[in-house]
Amino acid sequence: MTPVYERVALIGLGLIASSMFWGIRRSGLAREVTGYARSAETRETARRIGLCDHVFDTAAEAVAGADLIVLAVPVGAMEPVIRDIADHLAPGATVTDVGSVKRHVISAVQPHLPDGCHFVPAHPLAGTEHSGPESGFAELFDNRWCLLIPLENTPDQVVARVRALWEGLGSNVDEMDADHHDLVLAVTSHAPHLIAYTMVGVADDLRRVTDSEVIKYSAAGFRDFTRIAASDPTMWRDVFLTNKDATLEILGRFTEELFALQRAIRTGDGQHLHDYFTRTRAIRRGIIEAGQDIDAPDFGRTTVTK
Amino acid sequence: MTPVYERVALIGLGLIASSMFWGIRRSGLAREVTGYARSAETRETARRIGLCDHVFDTAAEAVAGADLIVLAVPVGAMEPVIRDIADHLAPGATVTDVGSVKRHVISAVQPHLPDGCHFVPAHPLAGTEHSGPESGFAELFDNRWCLLIPLENTPDQVVARVRALWEGLGSNVDEMDADHHDLVLAVTSHAPHLIAYTMVGVADDLRRVTDSEVIKYSAAGFRDFTRIAASDPTMWRDVFLTNKDATLEILGRFTEELFALQRAIRTGDGQHLHDYFTRTRAIRRGIIEAGQDIDAPDFGRTTVTK
Repeated sequence: MTPVYERVALIGLGLIASSMFWGIRRSGLAREVTGYARSAETRETARRIGLCDHVFDTAAEAVAGADLIVLAVPVGAMEPVIRDIADHLAPGATVTDVGSVKRHVISAVQPHLPDGCHFVPAHPLAGTEHSGPESGFAELFDNRWCLLIPLENTPDQVVARVRALWEGLGSNVDEMDADHHDLVLAVTSHAPHLIAYTMVGVADDLRRVTDSEVIKYSAAGFRDFTRIAASDPTMWRDVFLTNKDATLEILGRFTEELFALQRAIRTGDGQHLHDYFTRTRAIRRGIIEAGQDIDAPDFGRTTVTK
Repeated sequence: MTPVYERVALIGLGLIASSMFWGIRRSGLAREVTGYARSAETRETARRIGLCDHVFDTAAEAVAGADLIVLAVPVGAMEPVIRDIADHLAPGATVTDVGSVKRHVISAVQPHLPDGCHFVPAHPLAGTEHSGPESGFAELFDNRWCLLIPLENTPDQVVARVRALWEGLGSNVDEMDADHHDLVLAVTSHAPHLIAYTMVGVADDLRRVTDSEVIKYSAAGFRDFTRIAASDPTMWRDVFLTNKDATLEILGRFTEELFALQRAIRTGDGQHLHDYFTRTRAIRRGIIEAGQDIDAPDFGRTTVTK
């Protein structure tokens, strides 16, 4: 593949950036990849495992001469990072990000961008419960969606190159506006994460049921919640604080529905419960038909024979 | 392996019973396995795929001469089934079940048991989101827990044989009393299922966010909820109706915690959120260390290379 960029700078070296590096290398999407992480320990780990062609001790050095800069830090850290690097960006460089919230990131980044540079917000819908520089792998983005939020007055060819990068990483790319993105993600990601965190917290709190029993017998359903409740705490704190309105709106809807189901349980309304559970089953089929999950029972955790 | 039972009768031929059949055959745990399902279509499927040595058109025929009868029907169907078969049980036969709720099942089954027969309630903590006679597989119970709830005055050797069956199926066996079981399962299974059903229902309801978008972008977290919300509607309706008090208690705790986190989002209390999310991460590690889930990222849905 012809490289899409000459030099890509990854700012922040966690799960997403490290997966981008291995994916860029897999497909030859850039001639060179530089990296920077705030933590000296992360930089050391990155050097040890060969993550990035060069890992620099400052963000300013990492972005020098780069034609694409990827902000791969928690949403709340975007503004300090763009302030740090703004004066060091190459003329005409493109800045992109991978944050889970878009309206907030745009308002944090866009005002600091020098003339002639462009910001193309992006959000790859991919991740695992692991974090840090050693958690990345080239296939993370394969067949996952990446949402681009092109801003007004951004030249088409600038957006097209960011799209080409994500397609090269294996993603399907869609474009969306920022507010719609933040609402869709509140439904498909932010509210489910908060709910999973809550359920796991409840289980941890219950002293009558000891922790060890909760863990021992988790295969009955609970363990699926613990996977997403094991996601990076800093990243998720920032998501909820910066997508507050949409998240609270969806949680309000959730609470309403939960109360209706609790009431059906209390009053013994089996028909209501059965109808509800039948409807939700169809959604699972839709996800599998859309290629967004595997149909193997139990996520394919076990090998199946008869 | 020496057979544990001469003749096992499986009443109900869904995911659990069909997995038991393949597991019994894998390890030679019974000389003969008979089966019965209420639906003619299920019986027909079972015959076609070779599920059970004999599939009978009545439960009475299926249990005749069996030394172990497994009630593998939804919890709400236990009483009609035991009434149907009580007069046809062989002298000294053992009856067991696989229901997810124990106090209710005991009160439904025990009064109908003929003298000389014994009821040993059991609950294998294993399952998938699939259901029906074609969904079973021999490995379902491997390394999963099976909880036995021995009743007073049941001879030790009767319980020991049921235990030997489950150990032969690959399970680890624990004993527990009925009320404690019902509370533990409300935490580890019943409340999480209701919460997952609710979240999936909310997503389905939202017309501003179209169904297709929810499905398309589900990989951001939501799809994990859809797996457990795709479980059998009849089974789960019965679970909630028959473990009402414990489920409602845990849901009450859940709502309290959810409100506290919502408040932290609204007031911008990032420290509270970060502390909470850090605590829940540790629980995931406990589950992996206990061998109750795999550590592969994303449940191992993707193959990882660097």
